[in-house]
Amino acid sequence: MRFTRSGVLAAPVIVTLQRTRAAGLRVIAANSGNANAATGLPGLDVAIAMQAAAARAAGVQPDQVAVASTGVIGVPLDAERVGAALARAAEKLHGAGGDELTEAIMTTDAFAKRASLSVKLPSGTVRLCAQAKGAGMIEPSFATMLCFVETDAQLAPETADLLLGVCVKRSFDRISVDGQLSTNDTAILICSGASGVVVQPESEDEVRFGEALDALLRMLAIMIVRDGEGAKRICRVIVRGGHAGSVERCARAIANSPLVKTALHGADPNWGRIAQAVGAAIRRVGSDLTPLALDIAIEGIPVCVNGAAVAHDEDALRAAAAGVEIEYEVAIGPTHPAETEVFFSDLGHEYVTINAEYTT
Amino acid sequence: MRFTRSGVLAAPVIVTLQRTRAAGLRVIAANSGNANAATGLPGLDVAIAMQAAAARAAGVQPDQVAVASTGVIGVPLDAERVGAALARAAEKLHGAGGDELTEAIMTTDAFAKRASLSVKLPSGTVRLCAQAKGAGMIEPSFATMLCFVETDAQLAPETADLLLGVCVKRSFDRISVDGQLSTNDTAILICSGASGVVVQPESEDEVRFGEALDALLRMLAIMIVRDGEGAKRICRVIVRGGHAGSVERCARAIANSPLVKTALHGADPNWGRIAQAVGAAIRRVGSDLTPLALDIAIEGIPVCVNGAAVAHDEDALRAAAAGVEIEYEVAIGPTHPAETEVFFSDLGHEYVTINAEYTT
Repeated sequence: MRFTRSGVLAAPVIVTLQRTRAAGLRVIAANSGNANAATGLPGLDVAIAMQAAAARAAGVQPDQVAVASTGVIGVPLDAERVGAALARAAEKLHGAGGDELTEAIMTTDAFAKRASLSVKLPSGTVRLCAQAKGAGMIEPSFATMLCFVETDAQLAPETADLLLGVCVKRSFDRISVDGQLSTNDTAILICSGASGVVVQPESEDEVRFGEALDALLRMLAIMIVRDGEGAKRICRVIVRGGHAGSVERCARAIANSPLVKTALHGADPNWGRIAQAVGAAIRRVGSDLTPLALDIAIEGIPVCVNGAAVAHDEDALRAAAAGVEIEYEVAIGPTHPAETEVFFSDLGHEYVTINAEYTT
Repeated sequence: MRFTRSGVLAAPVIVTLQRTRAAGLRVIAANSGNANAATGLPGLDVAIAMQAAAARAAGVQPDQVAVASTGVIGVPLDAERVGAALARAAEKLHGAGGDELTEAIMTTDAFAKRASLSVKLPSGTVRLCAQAKGAGMIEPSFATMLCFVETDAQLAPETADLLLGVCVKRSFDRISVDGQLSTNDTAILICSGASGVVVQPESEDEVRFGEALDALLRMLAIMIVRDGEGAKRICRVIVRGGHAGSVERCARAIANSPLVKTALHGADPNWGRIAQAVGAAIRRVGSDLTPLALDIAIEGIPVCVNGAAVAHDEDALRAAAAGVEIEYEVAIGPTHPAETEVFFSDLGHEYVTINAEYTT
């Protein structure tokens, strides 16, 4: 299980962190429409009641249930309504309900996000299936979202935790729609063991299973960016040539710059705004006026080399910037080996409409 | 003189920092439409040529000239065109040209920003007059903008520098339109001494002059926010109750949150998004799940107390959120004395239109 690093935690996150045993996890109870965040002690009681109601409905112990909520922050969640809904939902549980689950957790999502894989491990074939939600309030550490992964492989809790942690860092930690960190982010890997295939630590099975989980989560993460409230284009920015902290700050600054994002929306290869974002991320120190050795390429076309504009084919650049998937490559110096990537969406009118006209 | 802290500095900023003597400053030469930033060594040569051309036109030495540019980043600036324009401009110089200057430096500004004051100091009356430009790419340290202040008081360069530094911190350093740091920010105080009034260090004159400069710059800073590309509403957020670094981070996170800004635009008192921004600014550490003692009030109406939603008059809140000037008060704990403020604008369709449809 992995959760948001927000300092303002939603009640279901606190309750799952404090009261759910990863080793015994059997049930996930989730609701959308209300985040049960900034709801104080009464909110914690509701999340505990939700956990208990789900346990009763599924015939397990409360500490075998994880709870997750997504929706509006700061509105009390009605425990009785949730309890009654869980009892009704339990009656309808069936083995092929993955699609219904995916749709049930959607909020401002324009499309359902699910993926599944069947993987041949040396010890046998296992299946992975995942559902995610998320479109806005999406940023690092990690994106606003719920993601549930089910597998019929058998993994020790420590192995599952290790693999999920690594894969979340390479997927949901690398995306941004609007630079906003949710109070409710939750990713859970639940292992039934039904396949009879045991994935042992440090085995070839573990490596292969990890690769499959990685592919699954990156797929879902990119789906979330593609659905970034009103997104028309998706960009992958790669930043290299600086210390790890610097490349990370630059990549985030570019991905979250409203000027870069509106230019992306408008298919405008206005790389001056990328330079601006880099300058803001790497502040000058004292009286040092040495120009930054900044290189920028858009879709492989160099536009800035060593801090200065370079001639390029304007028509080819405009055509490249009009694509649906765009790549920016940025080097902030020649000397350091660190490199990072962030996937992000553009900023268009629909984002404003969704977020100004509705309480989400 | 005060300049952007961006790590990607525009050529005119570098040239003014390296080649202009504050003590001898007599002329400011500025252009709009082209920022002369990310233009490499050729850009530096153009800025030096611009300084020399302005010096020739005004009959002073080059080191008595500051240069400033604003506009698109990454496009070469034509030195010959600038030189010819400066020669033409010099012929038209006249004592009442402040308005023409204000209009000449505008880019995406919807209205001209100027202010003037006449101040009775113990030693005599002095005048201050200021022009600013700026609407987008506006954030801390400090806002994207040019601001020129002229006074007929006589101040030693050290005194002028000290007062300008303090006043910039309380004005242009406290505003944000879109969280974007420009490569060209420049604020210059130029003192002619024509009034014959000498403002001595640590005198009552200095205190009064400083108050006047402070009022002038805060007025201009708020004008810039009011003009934040497409802004309909302006918000002042006050954050208190944490360490200095924490209240600053929270205030910036709220001011730059696209979710807060779109809610502000939509007159939606959706304070859950303020809570979200605070949580993102103050990440949880390790396994500490203690809820943050978060208080939020909008226009004096408490909506969140000690981390939890509180009942309030919904109609009164909606009416307050529909105003043109809104105040958010946020307390992130009861214990620390630090407090800060940031003025910011909303995020609406016009910002997207301006920045997606035009190359600015």
